[in-house]
Amino acid sequence: MTDQPALSVTAAVLVIGDEILSGRTKDKNIGYIAEYMTNIGIDLREVRVVPDVMDEIVDALNALRARYTYVFTTGGIGPTHDDITADAVAKAFGVELYEDQRIIEAMLTRMKPEDLNESRRRMARVPKGGELVPNPVNKIPGFRIGNVIVMAGVPMIMQAMLDSVAPTLETGVKLTMQSVDADAPEGAYAAALGDIAKARENLSIGSYPSYVDGKFRNQIIIRGRDPQEVAAGVQDVEAMLATLRAERG
Amino acid sequence: MTDQPALSVTAAVLVIGDEILSGRTKDKNIGYIAEYMTNIGIDLREVRVVPDVMDEIVDALNALRARYTYVFTTGGIGPTHDDITADAVAKAFGVELYEDQRIIEAMLTRMKPEDLNESRRRMARVPKGGELVPNPVNKIPGFRIGNVIVMAGVPMIMQAMLDSVAPTLETGVKLTMQSVDADAPEGAYAAALGDIAKARENLSIGSYPSYVDGKFRNQIIIRGRDPQEVAAGVQDVEAMLATLRAERG
Repeated sequence: MTDQPALSVTAAVLVIGDEILSGRTKDKNIGYIAEYMTNIGIDLREVRVVPDVMDEIVDALNALRARYTYVFTTGGIGPTHDDITADAVAKAFGVELYEDQRIIEAMLTRMKPEDLNESRRRMARVPKGGELVPNPVNKIPGFRIGNVIVMAGVPMIMQAMLDSVAPTLETGVKLTMQSVDADAPEGAYAAALGDIAKARENLSIGSYPSYVDGKFRNQIIIRGRDPQEVAAGVQDVEAMLATLRAERG
Repeated sequence: MTDQPALSVTAAVLVIGDEILSGRTKDKNIGYIAEYMTNIGIDLREVRVVPDVMDEIVDALNALRARYTYVFTTGGIGPTHDDITADAVAKAFGVELYEDQRIIEAMLTRMKPEDLNESRRRMARVPKGGELVPNPVNKIPGFRIGNVIVMAGVPMIMQAMLDSVAPTLETGVKLTMQSVDADAPEGAYAAALGDIAKARENLSIGSYPSYVDGKFRNQIIIRGRDPQEVAAGVQDVEAMLATLRAERG
């Protein structure tokens, strides 16, 4: 154990749900988790979206949990027959599911005992060895087993679960990110920018075109772990763009 | 060759870009392509988001193109050093890149010859054996090789490329989709809905909670290839919900 944050803590997101793949529901969780991870110093390295199919979920989970520090899943933890995420996680880890009495009790604070039917009890199932991830919104928690954190698909609930689990996560050095608006087409500065990127190999330098209010806009993003080096990279980029302006007259 | 559409034509989307994983850019292409595929009768089965890293792109491409009828990539086809999608696709297919004179000519209609520098020429590189995917927006095409269709990341350009390539794609029987608003909590109808899903195994029946305007709303979605069977499934669901209402008084 050390007080120094790890240099790189990584994560993947696994979105589980036919409704995202059919386009019926537009995912709002990927972008939210991506930004959240960046802000707490975790590198999101991969995202996958898979259907509500057992083997697809298990295979994706096993591929991702072997590769990254954390895997966050969203979706498939409700009471209906198509909610199979807990089963899939248990299968991936080779453990049984148990019914967690704390979840049963939390549910009983919100419904009559006769309404706690078999379907609703499904939401109290947790893989053996799992820990609960509290959810203040509707009290039914997600869970965490090993490096896999299982969250709801409804964004408001997912966000509450992320807030619950975040303080327990190992985090790395936060990236410093700066952006420079490029007053030139990408093709005009690409070679010079590539030279800067090559010279500053500790930085991640990218150029991102977008189309806003009827015109293209290019932003150059400079990211790195050392704020001073990022600032130096920004100076390089600004000097390069100034040279370009001078050349173009 | 037959006039009957294939029963199932599948697809995957591969989003390439650090900016999506950092959360700086919120992806708008996944949901758009998902809905588009559903509308033309192609089953989107998987989505992956990977960083601008050669081996990650090549590995994901090879995994996806082996499994699905089509793979659509977005992002990484601009002129800057971080645009490596064409290189990655060529590597995945084990072929060389060539400079396509049609693209060079299209670029020359929009810029002076002296502005057609080495960086911009990168955008004219196509893997050998590839075909162009026209892009009316800024004239610089995407390309297709084998079952992989390579498109821009900027949504407006991606959408134009999708329109260009769609008429050339094999498509399957379109799914019919109907939705029923459930006037009950998921836990109340989960068991009965599971029974319907089991009895109608040709249909895909799902229950989707969302949180809109301060309250939860559950929608039951019934999908299938045979519109009559979908209608029958809708009747089953509506009868089930009516029984539930009667029971609750």
